[in-house]
Amino acid sequence: MNRGKTPLTIDATVLRDVLDGEWAEARRRMRDLTEDPSLHLPADGTLEELRAATTAGIAAVAESGLTRLPLSEGEGGSNSHAEYVAGFEELVAASPSLQIKAGVQFGLFGGAIMHLGNDEQHEKWLDDALSGRLLGSFAMTEIGHGSDVAEVATTATYDAEAQEFVIHTPFRAATKEYIGNAARDARAAVVFSQLITNGVNHGVHAFVVPVRDEAGSVVDGITIEDDGKKGGLLGVDNGRIAFDQVRVPRGNLLTRYGAVTADGEYSSPIDSPGRRFFTMLGTLVQGRVSLDGAAVVASKLALDIAVRYAHDRRQFTSTSPVEETRLIDYQRHQRRLMPLISQTYANAISHDTLLHTFDAVFSGADESGEERELLETQAAGFKALSTWDALDTIQESREACGGAGYMDENRLVGLYGDMDVYVTFEGDNTVLLQLVGKRLLTDYAKELKDIDFGGAARFIGAQAAEHTLFRTGVANIGRTIGDLVTTSVRSKRVRSGKVQEALLSDRVETMVASVAQALRPARSMSQADSAALFNKHQNELIEASIAYIELLKWQGLNTEMHRVEDEGRHPDEAKILRRIRDLYGLTLIEKHMGWHSMHGRLPMARARLIGPTIDSLCAKLAENSLDLVDSFGYGPAHRRSPIADGAEAKRQDEARAYYRAARARSDWPVDEKELRKRAARR
Amino acid sequence: MNRGKTPLTIDATVLRDVLDGEWAEARRRMRDLTEDPSLHLPADGTLEELRAATTAGIAAVAESGLTRLPLSEGEGGSNSHAEYVAGFEELVAASPSLQIKAGVQFGLFGGAIMHLGNDEQHEKWLDDALSGRLLGSFAMTEIGHGSDVAEVATTATYDAEAQEFVIHTPFRAATKEYIGNAARDARAAVVFSQLITNGVNHGVHAFVVPVRDEAGSVVDGITIEDDGKKGGLLGVDNGRIAFDQVRVPRGNLLTRYGAVTADGEYSSPIDSPGRRFFTMLGTLVQGRVSLDGAAVVASKLALDIAVRYAHDRRQFTSTSPVEETRLIDYQRHQRRLMPLISQTYANAISHDTLLHTFDAVFSGADESGEERELLETQAAGFKALSTWDALDTIQESREACGGAGYMDENRLVGLYGDMDVYVTFEGDNTVLLQLVGKRLLTDYAKELKDIDFGGAARFIGAQAAEHTLFRTGVANIGRTIGDLVTTSVRSKRVRSGKVQEALLSDRVETMVASVAQALRPARSMSQADSAALFNKHQNELIEASIAYIELLKWQGLNTEMHRVEDEGRHPDEAKILRRIRDLYGLTLIEKHMGWHSMHGRLPMARARLIGPTIDSLCAKLAENSLDLVDSFGYGPAHRRSPIADGAEAKRQDEARAYYRAARARSDWPVDEKELRKRAARR
Repeated sequence: MNRGKTPLTIDATVLRDVLDGEWAEARRRMRDLTEDPSLHLPADGTLEELRAATTAGIAAVAESGLTRLPLSEGEGGSNSHAEYVAGFEELVAASPSLQIKAGVQFGLFGGAIMHLGNDEQHEKWLDDALSGRLLGSFAMTEIGHGSDVAEVATTATYDAEAQEFVIHTPFRAATKEYIGNAARDARAAVVFSQLITNGVNHGVHAFVVPVRDEAGSVVDGITIEDDGKKGGLLGVDNGRIAFDQVRVPRGNLLTRYGAVTADGEYSSPIDSPGRRFFTMLGTLVQGRVSLDGAAVVASKLALDIAVRYAHDRRQFTSTSPVEETRLIDYQRHQRRLMPLISQTYANAISHDTLLHTFDAVFSGADESGEERELLETQAAGFKALSTWDALDTIQESREACGGAGYMDENRLVGLYGDMDVYVTFEGDNTVLLQLVGKRLLTDYAKELKDIDFGGAARFIGAQAAEHTLFRTGVANIGRTIGDLVTTSVRSKRVRSGKVQEALLSDRVETMVASVAQALRPARSMSQADSAALFNKHQNELIEASIAYIELLKWQGLNTEMHRVEDEGRHPDEAKILRRIRDLYGLTLIEKHMGWHSMHGRLPMARARLIGPTIDSLCAKLAENSLDLVDSFGYGPAHRRSPIADGAEAKRQDEARAYYRAARARSDWPVDEKELRKRAARR
Repeated sequence: MNRGKTPLTIDATVLRDVLDGEWAEARRRMRDLTEDPSLHLPADGTLEELRAATTAGIAAVAESGLTRLPLSEGEGGSNSHAEYVAGFEELVAASPSLQIKAGVQFGLFGGAIMHLGNDEQHEKWLDDALSGRLLGSFAMTEIGHGSDVAEVATTATYDAEAQEFVIHTPFRAATKEYIGNAARDARAAVVFSQLITNGVNHGVHAFVVPVRDEAGSVVDGITIEDDGKKGGLLGVDNGRIAFDQVRVPRGNLLTRYGAVTADGEYSSPIDSPGRRFFTMLGTLVQGRVSLDGAAVVASKLALDIAVRYAHDRRQFTSTSPVEETRLIDYQRHQRRLMPLISQTYANAISHDTLLHTFDAVFSGADESGEERELLETQAAGFKALSTWDALDTIQESREACGGAGYMDENRLVGLYGDMDVYVTFEGDNTVLLQLVGKRLLTDYAKELKDIDFGGAARFIGAQAAEHTLFRTGVANIGRTIGDLVTTSVRSKRVRSGKVQEALLSDRVETMVASVAQALRPARSMSQADSAALFNKHQNELIEASIAYIELLKWQGLNTEMHRVEDEGRHPDEAKILRRIRDLYGLTLIEKHMGWHSMHGRLPMARARLIGPTIDSLCAKLAENSLDLVDSFGYGPAHRRSPIADGAEAKRQDEARAYYRAARARSDWPVDEKELRKRAARR
């Protein structure tokens, strides 16, 4: 035991194993790939150059063999879904543009064909899609309908005579928008449209639509516009696609959840149109899962740069008259960066639990509705928080590097611009948290589902009305930790994990119960009134969702810490994980201190210890902060940030050598200040 | 009286007068100027095109006559400093690049000559600088020393024989860095260097150094590098300047605070080298003042765009089966945007009080040391908070516009990138808050100044050691509102202004006292120990500074609200100002609820009312939110954001018309959902 010893002696590879998780191998293989300079965007490239470089990267990703992992063994894959996603997320280190472009090509375009197409359709398109020979778009979002996908206005009307679907954009707002691959590269698109046959609208279905010919000319009847410059992701050619009565063969409808016979008769394995729609969307959850992981990669890179710079950079001679103080030694600097490291650990480890759920559902190991719902809730909630966390982390890192952080060459500003859109795409974070909230309510009080038909469900996108069983586990939490809240909190151990969990989970339970109670009267209300009531508690519900996801992340981190502790092979690494867990937990409790106090959960005297305990944890972690960023597993070729890899240290060394030599010289000018001091002493 | 009436009937021009403040006329004149398309950056310009366009704007700014306002009447000006700055801030609406480029040219380069030069030097350079004929840089920051300006390493050694100063960069870290105007345009630079004569270093002084000849070629001995791409401000040509024994005439030393005779004898009107340095820097406070105002302009523009979009954009049919709900009607959307509007009001109104202080000091109306220190503290603290607020506001606005917010054409992402560097330049915000904190400590407990010589002062940049009198007024606050905290808080009026002020100011006083108490032992400690002690409380001190600045901003808003109320001419506008003040105050109290509870200032029952009161204020303000953004005073030519000015509304109208016509058609497809409902009813 080495109680109290700081800094701890840390083997970064032990922590790296913790962070890289179950699918470490795929992660590391792709991490190696991203060191290849040909995958990096040219520093001063034009929009066209950035796009061309990103497109070239698509081929490299396909060649890596990664894209075939999720295929069944019969189709040449290994039914490995989490392995695929884990590796794929690492593309962020090459560039987020490549990650997103590859996500569009393989995950969305290829994924739609894979998950929504039949065998014949797989045969026809899948290999070309997964090899990158057939570049494609995923045309779901419309200008007028982003979050509310069920309401897309593009129509696909079946013409039995011709055995064709007629794809049509009825008005400007129905134009497909922000579509990756559209502006430059896509030859085909999976287009989500309202399927109409025999005078009946069967809801949103996916169609494979050729959009450009082999020569790259846009197909007749299709109009493509370029979205041009965006806040980031400049390597991705987003654009708008409109259809003017464009005909595609009947066989281009992806038929897994709905098919049309030659004479126009519709059939589906799922009767309820609502459940059919959400099941279809559910197959595409991989996008959200991968964004959660991508956000972790981006956060790691930013912290890696900021922490290394903070060890090299010095400013102000505070402790010594000749040696300036390193940024990492300032308390405020520690307070700015260390909680973000603990948060990144929590997000990385929790992401691995999400990957487990994802793999269980997609591999078929657990195809239960409950597991699928857990997956959707975790993916929505984790993605929402981790993408926001990534923006906060990158921004704080950029500010912690001062002016140097603002220079494009040091990577941080570009990373911010790229990650910015992650918070509103693949599900706007606010909408995703509402989805989580509704699931919490459904789980907490089954009777509440009655109000779904009033209006609340529509309010959050109607998904929740389809589900009644949901494994949030909140109902259990309350029962098991009820006593701890009143006892352990009074103990002296502010860092007690049980107290942390009690506070965090009690908060979730109380908040959910409070909203559920408030919404009870909605059952007997009109649509308008129940929607208004729901709206009055929207903010509270979203806050409850955030509290729930924070709890899950804390629990993920806590479980992993206990695993390493129990294993007993790495005491110092277990100890630092405990510090990380405590910092994460106490930072959350500090953030919500008002709530805990207001609800009588945290005695004043105890509350006052939280700040100083956080200070102390930050100081301890700062001593091992290079180990912590080493554990992220990135090198200079990933960071590609001169200030993080020696440029600053070299300049400082040169300056110090200069002053050392100067002080030894007899003709070195004396400071006027010094002369005045000497005069005063005389 | 119209108690309880919502929405209020608001005359936006009344609120505009409140926001535009004392120097409204200059503000509006420049606001009109920024509508000129020739001042806007080309949408898809190359770096060179963006720079050229920005440089062209400099001439337009000079022609407006603005730049001469601060000159004395004898020099053709009107000694109008705040008027100058107020007008100048509005350039942000043209582009932040133009504001910064103009700030470098007129405020820093011209300002240094104006404030640090003698009459002869004014005669020689000032007119050319203020007309933009002589483009110049302000070369203070070095790669190695950003915040710690006193430690710049560039030397200016006097050669009596030649009557010249030799400017020299002794090592790479001493290279002047991030210097605006350097990479492309500057023909001269004001260079801050250690003045050495007769073997004595007299500290940092400013020298006018030619850097390019008339033809634009860089002067021999000078090396200029281009900083290239940055996170924003792409119209500003930042660069690095290094000097290799570059000679300038003796007359190029700006002599206001230090002169050298022909034979090398140094003299200064200020004996203390430390005070001399900070007095010199103090003349340049205008930069910080103007960034505070610029941050307000940027925040207004972002909110203007987001609020207008929120009124047009609809998503999800929650309250009605056919009409989708406007974003502005969602509670969470109100909660995201309304507090930012109240914060922007507080920042705008407080900025006007800062301009008053600035004008008093610079016009000579109040040249007292106290007023100057108040100015420096306000400028540092206001700038720190308002620039962070601007980033938060722009980011929230961009997210509130979803994918459309990420498109460059809608302005928000560009605005974010441009404003990003405002938080770390002209004083890194963290360093500025430490400056505020040290002033609070100095004011609170005079005896604390003893520790300055130990290390604490050096820790925050040594400025505070020079000052002992400081008008923060914190000592008074405690005495005057002590009773309110214990009485009014228990009253039912959560919105009571007295309670808000009591809570906010009690927090400041308690925090400052706590840090002061903790730092007492530093007096008898070594430099290293006292620095360590100070560092242990650095975070607390910075939090205290933030609390103090928040209080000042609340008070500014409160005072203005009372002025409009007392005037009695605009009851509805006074009422909305009260809602704005309450929302601002309660949002601050909610943010720090943990602290207030933890210190027993806020009973639980009272604390629980704060959230719902904020919800209700947000809902009320949302009803007048178009009035509130109208009050910002910007039009389509300032916003230049299609989604804010009709593009979205037009698309929605078209879609609605389509569906209206469709529903009337007999052959309109029926929804499968509807068929199933009908079948179920049978």
